[in-house]
Amino acid sequence: MAETKRMALIVHSGTLDRLLSAFILGSTAVALDFEVRLYFTFWGLTMLRRGAMEEAGLPADYRHMEDQLRERMREMNYPTPYEMLRRMKASGRAKLYACTPTMEMFGIARDDLIPEVDQLAGAATFLDMAADADITLII
Amino acid sequence: MAETKRMALIVHSGTLDRLLSAFILGSTAVALDFEVRLYFTFWGLTMLRRGAMEEAGLPADYRHMEDQLRERMREMNYPTPYEMLRRMKASGRAKLYACTPTMEMFGIARDDLIPEVDQLAGAATFLDMAADADITLII
Amino acid sequence: MAETKRMALIVHSGTLDRLLSAFILGSTAVALDFEVRLYFTFWGLTMLRRGAMEEAGLPADYRHMEDQLRERMREMNYPTPYEMLRRMKASGRAKLYACTPTMEMFGIARDDLIPEVDQLAGAATFLDMAADADITLII
Repeated sequence: MAETKRMALIVHSGTLDRLLSAFILGSTAVALDFEVRLYFTFWGLTMLRRGAMEEAGLPADYRHMEDQLRERMREMNYPTPYEMLRRMKASGRAKLYACTPTMEMFGIARDDLIPEVDQLAGAATFLDMAADADITLII
Repeated sequence: MAETKRMALIVHSGTLDRLLSAFILGSTAVALDFEVRLYFTFWGLTMLRRGAMEEAGLPADYRHMEDQLRERMREMNYPTPYEMLRRMKASGRAKLYACTPTMEMFGIARDDLIPEVDQLAGAATFLDMAADADITLII
Repeated sequence: MAETKRMALIVHSGTLDRLLSAFILGSTAVALDFEVRLYFTFWGLTMLRRGAMEEAGLPADYRHMEDQLRERMREMNYPTPYEMLRRMKASGRAKLYACTPTMEMFGIARDDLIPEVDQLAGAATFLDMAADADITLII
């Protein structure tokens, strides 16, 4: 039996395009039977607040394309970032970590976060996972 | 004989500074006999449209430095991103992948892309390559 | 005895949030006895000029949160990026590399840089380190 592959991904960004990139990689990885660990920090962490991810937009440089992108994704029946995140979790092969120093910096409490978060953790937890992963990325 | 090293690089960004970072890494890697796989998605993918890469600029935060950077690169006879990309391809050790979901989202057809693209592919193709690579990065 | 783990990190960005992300990862890694190699290029390199890091701010999309973040970090007695960098160096397990092509592009001389820089180097130096590292990231 082949050894399980692992991906460890830091989500630093909170813009729609980068959440999509992260979650497309994550969803595809769980579909390929990878174990996926997503560590949310900074703007990525702020997107774990209830209701925040639905409001994620494009960065200023690309804002003029936001409406067009959203409309196109609806036409394609493309899942939203939050839908992708919930499907990843439903696979049983994805775990979500929320960066504790960021929570303190931004005054965010555990109860503010979506219920899909598995664990509050510092960078050491991520590094332990990443050192044994086949793929490590920060976006 | 030493085993061939491999680098798998996702190009998410489409700004001049990040294309340069990606292609300097890619060019240096092929010069060191690495096999290089470049997977273009989102803004990076839009830069594969014919003529787009020549127009790549700096992000808003740094736009005031764009003219100076371009002039300095000309003085240094520094290759442009597209020139670097073509040299990488000419080495025979670089392959370019265009992200199919991005093409659909942005209404981009195969014929719109520069001829150096090797293959249209989804994220699973990238993950397969990345899991066996020595270096994986997303920019 | 366990083998020493290694992290190779490219710092492309020069904004406060991304310097913090990079240096929190780096500081945590040296605390876990990793060897850490930080390769500064583009906007990251410009932040190695004496006095520059203290002036690092948030990107335009988040600038409205800058004062609040700085104040909160002071309340938490959180170290600044430069303080974190010096502590990493003091551990003896972190080395800092400055990208030579970037220095030429931006007209930056060795004497302009903070004394903590260990070596001026091109991308080949980074790739050599990264190919043997357990974790490679670009931010």
